[in-house]
Amino acid sequence: MSIQGFDPRTGAATGAPVAETTVAEVDAIAARAAAALGRWARTPAAVRAAALEGIAAAIDAESTELAALADRETALGLPRLTGEIKRTTSQLRLFADVLREGSYLEATLDAADASSVPPRPELRRMLQSIGPVAVFAASNFPFAFSVAGGDTASALAGGSSVVVKAHEAHPQTSRATAAIVARALAAAGAPAGTFDIVYGVAAGAQLVRHPAIKAAGFTGSTHGGRALFDLANARPDPIPFYGELGSVNPVLILPHAAAERAKEIARGFAASLTLGTGQFCTNPGLVFAPATLVDELAAAVRQASGGAMLTRRMRDQYLAGTQALAAAAEAVATGAESDAAFGATPHLFRVDLQTFAGDIERFAEECFGPAALVVAYRDPQDAIALLGRLPGSLTASVHAAPADAAEAMQAADVLRGIAGRVVYNAWPTGVAVAWGMQHGGPWPATTNPLHTSVGATAIRRWLVPVTFQDWPDALLPDELKDANPLRIPRRRNGVPGAG
Amino acid sequence: MSIQGFDPRTGAATGAPVAETTVAEVDAIAARAAAALGRWARTPAAVRAAALEGIAAAIDAESTELAALADRETALGLPRLTGEIKRTTSQLRLFADVLREGSYLEATLDAADASSVPPRPELRRMLQSIGPVAVFAASNFPFAFSVAGGDTASALAGGSSVVVKAHEAHPQTSRATAAIVARALAAAGAPAGTFDIVYGVAAGAQLVRHPAIKAAGFTGSTHGGRALFDLANARPDPIPFYGELGSVNPVLILPHAAAERAKEIARGFAASLTLGTGQFCTNPGLVFAPATLVDELAAAVRQASGGAMLTRRMRDQYLAGTQALAAAAEAVATGAESDAAFGATPHLFRVDLQTFAGDIERFAEECFGPAALVVAYRDPQDAIALLGRLPGSLTASVHAAPADAAEAMQAADVLRGIAGRVVYNAWPTGVAVAWGMQHGGPWPATTNPLHTSVGATAIRRWLVPVTFQDWPDALLPDELKDANPLRIPRRRNGVPGAG
Repeated sequence: MSIQGFDPRTGAATGAPVAETTVAEVDAIAARAAAALGRWARTPAAVRAAALEGIAAAIDAESTELAALADRETALGLPRLTGEIKRTTSQLRLFADVLREGSYLEATLDAADASSVPPRPELRRMLQSIGPVAVFAASNFPFAFSVAGGDTASALAGGSSVVVKAHEAHPQTSRATAAIVARALAAAGAPAGTFDIVYGVAAGAQLVRHPAIKAAGFTGSTHGGRALFDLANARPDPIPFYGELGSVNPVLILPHAAAERAKEIARGFAASLTLGTGQFCTNPGLVFAPATLVDELAAAVRQASGGAMLTRRMRDQYLAGTQALAAAAEAVATGAESDAAFGATPHLFRVDLQTFAGDIERFAEECFGPAALVVAYRDPQDAIALLGRLPGSLTASVHAAPADAAEAMQAADVLRGIAGRVVYNAWPTGVAVAWGMQHGGPWPATTNPLHTSVGATAIRRWLVPVTFQDWPDALLPDELKDANPLRIPRRRNGVPGAG
Repeated sequence: MSIQGFDPRTGAATGAPVAETTVAEVDAIAARAAAALGRWARTPAAVRAAALEGIAAAIDAESTELAALADRETALGLPRLTGEIKRTTSQLRLFADVLREGSYLEATLDAADASSVPPRPELRRMLQSIGPVAVFAASNFPFAFSVAGGDTASALAGGSSVVVKAHEAHPQTSRATAAIVARALAAAGAPAGTFDIVYGVAAGAQLVRHPAIKAAGFTGSTHGGRALFDLANARPDPIPFYGELGSVNPVLILPHAAAERAKEIARGFAASLTLGTGQFCTNPGLVFAPATLVDELAAAVRQASGGAMLTRRMRDQYLAGTQALAAAAEAVATGAESDAAFGATPHLFRVDLQTFAGDIERFAEECFGPAALVVAYRDPQDAIALLGRLPGSLTASVHAAPADAAEAMQAADVLRGIAGRVVYNAWPTGVAVAWGMQHGGPWPATTNPLHTSVGATAIRRWLVPVTFQDWPDALLPDELKDANPLRIPRRRNGVPGAG
């Protein structure tokens, strides 16, 4: 069997097919990843940082070719793809910064204290690689959440070897990116096996069950993610599985904001909804708005354009999702159709708050693509009272004017319990790569709400603590030696930054 | 049905039976925990810290009565139990310190930066409570890993409401401790429902599946922990389950240490092995030693005394475990029998390295109680080569003389991959409560190797991140306000400690 890419604009095959990785090949790749682990994990962080920068530079150098290749397989357009490549390489560089800064190690030194109960020996703790990591690439970001995306960058940064399972929607882009990553790592002196790639659903399932793999990251559908999550947990030795699954990303538009900025809000909403043909994990799919704003939102969606979805299957699922919404809610706007083979049309549906409250599970299901449901309210308190019952999301947004401040604060206090990122007067699409980013949330947004897949702390998913008790200084890892030869931030006897 | 405590010394019932919690009661308790969450989570950290100290003071005040009660149910002895109570209350006080210090919040502020790719809005990130937590108490530490133990202390500290599932081995101790905790929390102004307790295996299973419960902690057997772990993951909305399960805690005794300190090592080993009748998660159950040291180890075990185990069932499982070892290995020493009803006798078994290597899974299975297997080696390199194949453990220890330094370092480099704490020239029993402690490890030591159940960072298990994007300062939580009114350590624009 092989993986064939398709041009979403024409529906025709594009590029050569890529062979599915066989069982024996997956075995060999996983074994090489395990063999590489020790050397890569013990490679000084500064050298790993340089290797990440080497990957970034190599990708930047081939940006034009990569964007063109990805555009044929995804139809996301050259401007977006070129920007996404920049985002991907700045993400690699962020993790190089994280490695050089050093606090990701959480190095902690406690002197012995015989007066403690129980007596305290000398304890020196740090984080280290969890082991080889499997990364399941996403369809909708062929660079930033794919072969050299955030999961790969953060896992490599943390000293893990990485095996990527390529997404079926962009096999040639995956293959080209993987070749660049492998070359750059080899040039930086990383051991063979530090990075590899497999193709095919069966190879992915084998990977997540493979004894050599110690953790997995995933970005994709709730259905696919749940299946892999279950495999990871059913192992004789379960492993952490970090899945970013479905998210409906609720938006609350408060009355004064709606009254003062109706057109601006409606335009912003339609732009966010249809960005990348709605194929963002953070797409605003559920809007609570004053009943009086619905016409304005509908008008904006009517002026929005459809586009190509990434695969025929995703388009078909989008059609099924919009049909389900049409059966349950009122269709209030339809955007311009797309003439792409895998084309999708923007849709806005409307339901009143009481109806929504009666079947939240049904109405708040993610419909991946440029469709949203607006829940029309009379009293914002009715909407706020419902927010805590929504499923977990990556984001939740509030649009407020100064006169809405009390309700905005009230809403934020609820929304922080159901979403990883709470946005004020902005739209959730667009996820900055930064120290303070949180891209995660309660189920079904992710399989594990403690973590983020974007931003500096994404590295924490691939790190496990180890404490050295009473070891002679000369035998300790450099990170924990008394003189702090690596000059990293450390906590000493409870005091942070004490070196 | 009810839970009856038994005196391990006599086998007779002790104390009144405690009724199992009914399905309806568990439902009501979980609902109250959910209702309390918001207020407790938003209670200022300084007030939560004072509440933890209030619990500690209340427990200390009843230490004599609690120790006497627990001694009747566990036979662990008054000195040990009195010490364990002190450890439990100093653990509560450590988390009060952690709350006041504030870096557990991981507060992070990033200014907006339009030049980033993608553009960066203003981002402010912190950790907050995951929601109501279920705590499954352990049998072997009726205070430190039970009702008011580390899981409860760290979860309450993090702003979670807590429902404890009491262990069947000490129902009256559990009930008495729970009453103290509830009273102290009420006195500190915590909302009703912040803390409660349930009794019975069925109540525990209901709890881990209850929609109101958002995470669970467990200390106990691999069998029981795996069953609850599977329930947690099979939920429609899986929740993090932190189980501390079985651990064989390998010890490597290197040749020069064995030659120079044979008697001291043997005495230390026997004392650690039989401490608390071997009922420690960190009990040294597997020793790699030069063949020449085996006689000395055996002599020390022969002089050691047996004691009472906590329950008849645990004693029976210990007997089954030692019989399995006797069938596979050579019995080289037996300690003094105990006349307790649930008595267990120390045992030492011996196997040569080649035999061990042929069936590691069988030989390296935990036998909970005062029994160990010594693997006799000729060349330390043969032993070191095997260490990486051992199952995950909470601890691994190396005994070395200065002339063993090279091998010790080599062993440590392997052992840090299979154990959470690597000990030098000391015994693993005794787990200090400190910033730098790690009490965790790869499966089967725990269900999640990223975390610890002892020490300051145990709080991280109950915390999830949230990022506020572009919020006006006045509407932000105090932890993230620009002026840093709580004066907590924060990272600003990537710089730690920048306030």
